[in-house]
Amino acid sequence: MMNEKNTGWIRHVSLTPPTLQNNTADADRLIRELKTRLNADAVDIDLYLLKRLPDLLRRYEYNVDCVLFKDRKRWLVTGVTHSKDTSSIYGLAVDIGTTRIVMRLIDLSTGRIQAETFSDNPQISAGPDILARIHFADQDGGLDRLNKMIIDALNRMIMTLCDSCNIKQHNIYLLSVAGNTAMTHLFMGLSPRWIIREPYIPVINRPGLVKAKELGIKVNPMARALIFPNAGSYFGGDLIAGILFSGLNKTEDTAILVDVGTNAEVVLGNKDWLVACAGAAGPAMECGVTGMGMMAGPGVIDQVVIDHDTYNIRLHTINNMPPEGICGSGLIDLAAQLFLCGMIDIKGKLVPSICGSRLKEKDGIRHLVVAYAEDSATGSDLTISQADIDSLIRSKAAMYTILETIISSVGISFKDLSTFYVAGTFGSFINPRSAISIGMLPDLPIDRYKSLDNSSIGGATMALTSSEYLDEIDNIRDRITYLELNVNQEFMNRFNSARFLPHTDPLLFS
Amino acid sequence: MMNEKNTGWIRHVSLTPPTLQNNTADADRLIRELKTRLNADAVDIDLYLLKRLPDLLRRYEYNVDCVLFKDRKRWLVTGVTHSKDTSSIYGLAVDIGTTRIVMRLIDLSTGRIQAETFSDNPQISAGPDILARIHFADQDGGLDRLNKMIIDALNRMIMTLCDSCNIKQHNIYLLSVAGNTAMTHLFMGLSPRWIIREPYIPVINRPGLVKAKELGIKVNPMARALIFPNAGSYFGGDLIAGILFSGLNKTEDTAILVDVGTNAEVVLGNKDWLVACAGAAGPAMECGVTGMGMMAGPGVIDQVVIDHDTYNIRLHTINNMPPEGICGSGLIDLAAQLFLCGMIDIKGKLVPSICGSRLKEKDGIRHLVVAYAEDSATGSDLTISQADIDSLIRSKAAMYTILETIISSVGISFKDLSTFYVAGTFGSFINPRSAISIGMLPDLPIDRYKSLDNSSIGGATMALTSSEYLDEIDNIRDRITYLELNVNQEFMNRFNSARFLPHTDPLLFS
Repeated sequence: MMNEKNTGWIRHVSLTPPTLQNNTADADRLIRELKTRLNADAVDIDLYLLKRLPDLLRRYEYNVDCVLFKDRKRWLVTGVTHSKDTSSIYGLAVDIGTTRIVMRLIDLSTGRIQAETFSDNPQISAGPDILARIHFADQDGGLDRLNKMIIDALNRMIMTLCDSCNIKQHNIYLLSVAGNTAMTHLFMGLSPRWIIREPYIPVINRPGLVKAKELGIKVNPMARALIFPNAGSYFGGDLIAGILFSGLNKTEDTAILVDVGTNAEVVLGNKDWLVACAGAAGPAMECGVTGMGMMAGPGVIDQVVIDHDTYNIRLHTINNMPPEGICGSGLIDLAAQLFLCGMIDIKGKLVPSICGSRLKEKDGIRHLVVAYAEDSATGSDLTISQADIDSLIRSKAAMYTILETIISSVGISFKDLSTFYVAGTFGSFINPRSAISIGMLPDLPIDRYKSLDNSSIGGATMALTSSEYLDEIDNIRDRITYLELNVNQEFMNRFNSARFLPHTDPLLFS
Repeated sequence: MMNEKNTGWIRHVSLTPPTLQNNTADADRLIRELKTRLNADAVDIDLYLLKRLPDLLRRYEYNVDCVLFKDRKRWLVTGVTHSKDTSSIYGLAVDIGTTRIVMRLIDLSTGRIQAETFSDNPQISAGPDILARIHFADQDGGLDRLNKMIIDALNRMIMTLCDSCNIKQHNIYLLSVAGNTAMTHLFMGLSPRWIIREPYIPVINRPGLVKAKELGIKVNPMARALIFPNAGSYFGGDLIAGILFSGLNKTEDTAILVDVGTNAEVVLGNKDWLVACAGAAGPAMECGVTGMGMMAGPGVIDQVVIDHDTYNIRLHTINNMPPEGICGSGLIDLAAQLFLCGMIDIKGKLVPSICGSRLKEKDGIRHLVVAYAEDSATGSDLTISQADIDSLIRSKAAMYTILETIISSVGISFKDLSTFYVAGTFGSFINPRSAISIGMLPDLPIDRYKSLDNSSIGGATMALTSSEYLDEIDNIRDRITYLELNVNQEFMNRFNSARFLPHTDPLLFS
């Protein structure tokens, strides 16, 4: 508890009460003490709090707990309470994903997560992906509408969390918000127009602290939101938060962090350097397969085992519900199993002699029945088409090529990686063995793979638990070298070699 | 012009437009350039401006003028315009006096004063002096009412200035506000309650920059108000502004600055040290005499000459109107002339044998007719009573005692003063020769006396013309040693010696 108070955002302050010989003003007295304690250049207090400060200091006899936040070298006092009230000081960690928003309520006096809630990003109604929303924002009033959607959703989620924990919005003093560059812009009401137009310029890379009130967030009027910085249009605050959460930036040995969605975002590095890149991995990894593709959820196939003798397909679904679709990690499991038992060949083509009666043809395209109608939740056969498999193989080839490119850019090999972090929903479900089987991930000992789940909300949560992390965030941001993926001849050669299962170079997967 | 731009608050910035190889965000690009140019640790941009920045930069092809302001080490961008628009960038210098508010409109591109207006402080309706207003503020809703009075008055004055110069309130980006500690508190909506209660604690000594919008001031939404710091409950921002205006803090030789009202505020020092004190000088200096006392204005006697042979009293009035009253400086002239021609003695008592028929008695108190009914604007005799003269002598004795005390506290004598600055309305009308004649001011060569007029608005104006002055303001504030005037035996001995005309020690005035 004591230790938490020393690095956390609540600091107990005992001031010497004023006398004729020591008649510094109330605010200056508090600021002077905090400056010494925090070794800070500047400590600022809002006018709103200044108006209440003389009463608070006298009521609590100059013994108060201050809620602080930090904007580079400047500290801000966002609340002053009495020690016995610290149980009512909360923060919110927020991950604004393109499809989903996650919010956690953090008790700032203990650093504990009190509650969590999530919601679809309501901007989906204006466009499913970033590109569509940026075009929507360009229309008359479009940006304001997108901004209002996200702010309203956040305010609803705050109400839900406050109700569930029986606290008031007024008790929330700090926010920490991570999202990709476009989502961060829409959250702040900034035009994302130039993010997608050459030369791809965000409005701001380092938003720092912004008053929650100015953003339209209904919490304590003094509350500040830390908005995670981005490293560019294609490397957002969600990834900076992910790096913080993984600890990659502090490891002695070199490690890698991969976040897979429609884009694959990769960070390679250690305590001395960080290199990042991002590239299109194709839609296959994120529910983009035709017919049966879905986001992870109940009834979604996440594990597949095929008997090598009988070719019987055993499916595992989330919550053990009858299957109704397949998610990215299930698809990788399926492809690996199909390949290992010979139902698809090294080019990923379905082999009729082995697939047998499971193979059907629709509109001239081969389909493999994964679950028959009588076993499925939909009442129809769940099938995967040759086109779906081709798409997956392009995606896995892109993924592997991106990994090879970034690794070779710093002159090391996969074997040098101490840890391979896989982030995101994808990361929590993927079976690394399957991903290795199809040559999507490199052939490393399984224990080097670590799943991080939602690393973005993890990093946002950390920022609310210790003041030290704020410096680390800026430090990560400033240390990243962003590698532009030039789709040149070398890249294409690598990509073409990776379009085989697992690869044209069998030594890489032996 | 170029020189003004380098120290003024408008800086022209030519940014390298972004390319694929140089794709820093718009805000970060501008901030990076400003940081280098200003040698600044931090440059911040409001969310309001961030929303407009991408369009502004592209419209003006990355050539813009930035309106800046500074809060200790942090610079703020409060506006971005095109070079051709700099003629529409204005600032407001404000002096909030207990009785009068003065406001100037400053063209920030040239530093020139475009217009000036003044108004009574409407808080007079709640109480004539600081003490009465602080008690009023303590009543339910009293603080809010006093705050609203001053803010409404300022907004009206802004409208007047804008109309007279045909500009929009939106064109005002910076404010600089000086006032005594209580007026500053009421302006900010801070409780002045503890200023007058032992141990006399203001809410804040260094308010720094505050958003004009948060203060309720209707100008550009990004505008910031610099609020002059105070050195304590009895040494306000108006005096810090006065020191800045006098240049006292930068002189090689020691000088003194005196601001006389109901309180006499004195600062002594040079480039190495500053000592200040304040003490009650009594009401005589500020229209406090009975019957004919007035604030300086048309028809008010400001100069008096008495013929040593005929005892004829010649009066000069402001604007040469028929006399209707007398102001502080006129009263000093009158007392000096009465003393020099023997109409009052060294104790200040009216001498019947010399005053002759001008002497009348009302309610047992002697009155001297200064202007007969037929010459006055009121149609009645203008008289000064023995009680008025006694009051003036107590005031002049208090003044001289305060000066002697501060001078002796640093071990120098009056002769060591290179310059004697007299500030305020009082300072612009007073005849130093007369003040010396009655022993109110020390017997220094006349050319060492310098009138400063309204030094508070002068200092506030300077703050809008050069960024260098902002550091100077903090520097003045931090260097002042405040001397508590202990009314002890030594002080009383000095005071009693100073109650004679000019003094019991004739060597002091030889």
